[in-house]
Amino acid sequence: MLENQLAAARAGREQAVADLLEFLAIPSVSSLLAHHADTRRACAWTADRLRRMGMEVEIAELPGGRHPVISAQWLGRPGQPTLAIYGHYDVQPPDPLDEWVTPPFQPAVRDGRVYARGACDNKGQVLAGIKAAEHAFSHGGPPLNLRFLIEGEEEISGTSLPRFLRENSSRLASDYVLIADGEFTAPSLPNLLTGLRGLLYTEIVAEGAAADLHSGIFGGVAPNPLNTLAHALSALKGRDGRVTIPGFYDAVAAPAPEEIESWNRVRDEGTLKRLMAVRALEGEADRSPAERTWSRPTLDVHGIIGGFIGEGTKTVIPARARAKVSMRLVPRQDPAAIFESLAGYVKQLETPGVSLTAVKLSTAPPVLAGVDHPGIAAARRAFLKSYGAEPVLVREGGSVPVTVDFQEALRPHMIITGFGLPDDALHSPNEKMDLEQYHLGSEMVLNLMAELSASH
Amino acid sequence: MLENQLAAARAGREQAVADLLEFLAIPSVSSLLAHHADTRRACAWTADRLRRMGMEVEIAELPGGRHPVISAQWLGRPGQPTLAIYGHYDVQPPDPLDEWVTPPFQPAVRDGRVYARGACDNKGQVLAGIKAAEHAFSHGGPPLNLRFLIEGEEEISGTSLPRFLRENSSRLASDYVLIADGEFTAPSLPNLLTGLRGLLYTEIVAEGAAADLHSGIFGGVAPNPLNTLAHALSALKGRDGRVTIPGFYDAVAAPAPEEIESWNRVRDEGTLKRLMAVRALEGEADRSPAERTWSRPTLDVHGIIGGFIGEGTKTVIPARARAKVSMRLVPRQDPAAIFESLAGYVKQLETPGVSLTAVKLSTAPPVLAGVDHPGIAAARRAFLKSYGAEPVLVREGGSVPVTVDFQEALRPHMIITGFGLPDDALHSPNEKMDLEQYHLGSEMVLNLMAELSASH
Repeated sequence: MLENQLAAARAGREQAVADLLEFLAIPSVSSLLAHHADTRRACAWTADRLRRMGMEVEIAELPGGRHPVISAQWLGRPGQPTLAIYGHYDVQPPDPLDEWVTPPFQPAVRDGRVYARGACDNKGQVLAGIKAAEHAFSHGGPPLNLRFLIEGEEEISGTSLPRFLRENSSRLASDYVLIADGEFTAPSLPNLLTGLRGLLYTEIVAEGAAADLHSGIFGGVAPNPLNTLAHALSALKGRDGRVTIPGFYDAVAAPAPEEIESWNRVRDEGTLKRLMAVRALEGEADRSPAERTWSRPTLDVHGIIGGFIGEGTKTVIPARARAKVSMRLVPRQDPAAIFESLAGYVKQLETPGVSLTAVKLSTAPPVLAGVDHPGIAAARRAFLKSYGAEPVLVREGGSVPVTVDFQEALRPHMIITGFGLPDDALHSPNEKMDLEQYHLGSEMVLNLMAELSASH
Repeated sequence: MLENQLAAARAGREQAVADLLEFLAIPSVSSLLAHHADTRRACAWTADRLRRMGMEVEIAELPGGRHPVISAQWLGRPGQPTLAIYGHYDVQPPDPLDEWVTPPFQPAVRDGRVYARGACDNKGQVLAGIKAAEHAFSHGGPPLNLRFLIEGEEEISGTSLPRFLRENSSRLASDYVLIADGEFTAPSLPNLLTGLRGLLYTEIVAEGAAADLHSGIFGGVAPNPLNTLAHALSALKGRDGRVTIPGFYDAVAAPAPEEIESWNRVRDEGTLKRLMAVRALEGEADRSPAERTWSRPTLDVHGIIGGFIGEGTKTVIPARARAKVSMRLVPRQDPAAIFESLAGYVKQLETPGVSLTAVKLSTAPPVLAGVDHPGIAAARRAFLKSYGAEPVLVREGGSVPVTVDFQEALRPHMIITGFGLPDDALHSPNEKMDLEQYHLGSEMVLNLMAELSASH
């Protein structure tokens, strides 16, 4: 059955390209009201494909949402696991337009690549999954139960999908979720994402005098919120890269040594220095650079508000100042508990005339996809069989909200990966998708379905 | 002779008020081109008065200057010392206009006060000196050699007077300079300013990666210029208020115990807390608040540029950040030497991936008028005889550029004081001058001339 499906995929490459060009020609820019109808059109186009292959399709408009969630299901294999495939039909705005070689919504094929806004992010990748399902349905049907959950608000951080998942968690129950919205680590080097850091974003507010003061008159006795902030920010993270918030590291989980070894192979000091163009890396010297960015929490100051920032000189001592400070958190750290500890700690860092208050602006919990579930083994085999390459296990230093939404609502095993390449120019002019990556992505999904079914 | 001059001053009060109203009616706003001709008119008006009393008057246009310097001299007392009286004929802009009870350039007398822009700063005060000279010339002549140096660029920090003083220092030689551009410490409490702090204003530039970085991807290894700046700024001045720049305190001169006692009487902790509306003063706990603001150097951060300062959250690690940092310096500290030390010190405060560079933006040397020259004793007696009050010796925490210009060009003994009152609203709507303060100011100058002559 699998061989027939794979053969159909190989035979249907020309049609697969035609389908992709059709999808890419719809300018579904979710953030622009001028493209509201276009985005709806991309939704209908996607839903129609899913319906035609025999899936039960629901288009869910959520209160306060801008674009609906497409939920498609086929539960024709009782006793088999259920795989949900995630994707999004909306795209980023295309500007700056004048930097595109060909127009962003007139997809053009050059040298085996298709250039268009959304080619990689995410139309090429979600369509790879949809095409796989088409071939499966037309050749014996998928070997397991199948679900698609496709949103239209990924690029505007919309709330429709999170809300839909939470409100319908029991009827959407899935054993595995495939999120293919990323890129290979390098050409011929696919990856599986096993953890993502969370985020706790705060402001530290420093308040001194009732009004701004002149340093000529009061300098020497005036409480200066900027000086006190400097003391506090300096105290929060030492020059050794260690965060000093009480209990900050208590819940930090250590990755397996094999994981660290695997990371160190793809994310070494030299590469990072080149990427950032810096003379030296900073942070915890006793941890490898990969560890520091993927499995260690950290703290960064993003901006400081208050006082005089114009050209030249002004000797103002501001009444107030605020610092934007975020912490990247790792699996098992609790953003709420860390914030409570921070809030108490900054009180200890006050100076006689300056109060300090921590304010929470946003949080995203860390995600641990895990390395020990059968989905990971199945995905490794599926990558090997399709792309001929063993995927590397990596983590991500940043937060990807949709992973949190799935984790919290459905508690599935997560297969977080991508079929793009590092030079696909996501969110940039001349975004592209290599057609070979696209076609093999369909074969990977067919293999994955078979592996998940077989390992059950 | 002095008694006749004082009697003439008392008899001429009505005319003195009429003269003041005429002077104040000229809207000599030096910063506004619309008032260019008016400012010139105020210059001519002033020069004319000096010429009419028999002084030799020069109106000096300096290259690059906007308004001329008036230099008047009468050297009719060979063997006697020379007193130079400073003043300025330009005024601040009057806005916000709608907050004035009567229009700023239609001087109005209410309750013994004249309300107008420039009433106290500086027309009322400079005219008090001019009127004194008129009475002196019409009743036997001044008892010493007399000079007026009156500029029209005080409110725009112009370079004409400094340049004129430096280029003509030998022919402008003066034993004493009277600068009356200030206010009493309290009603019935005149003061003499014996020292002013200088200023060294710098930027500390922190440079990390070649471009802004995303903390999700690089947080943990990315050099963060804002974090490094926080460390450096925290290191520059401890929580104890001590500046740690090597050699910073080496040249700091200790004031006499009597001076400190005198200061503590007029500038105590409770007053400063009320003035700033703060819960506590900061700074060196082993120094009195007056010392901390008047005779101790300090360091303040005025603003930090770089990164994200909008509403909400952005997880940027900026490539560069800059901090505006100034140091108030006290007599005998050398701004150039302190800057050199700072520049070397910040290099030691770098972190592995962030360079730190100190950039000098501006400097003003500290001024020590001294308490031990005969001008101070003469001024004390002159205040006692005119206002019936002994002046308090104070210092100023900020820099007044003109004092530096005189000190460096002429090296005279300086008598820095003022005839205004603390509620005169300089630079604000409804600026005023108490007429009694104005008239007694003329008597003070007559007494001062006599005292300086007698103590010679």
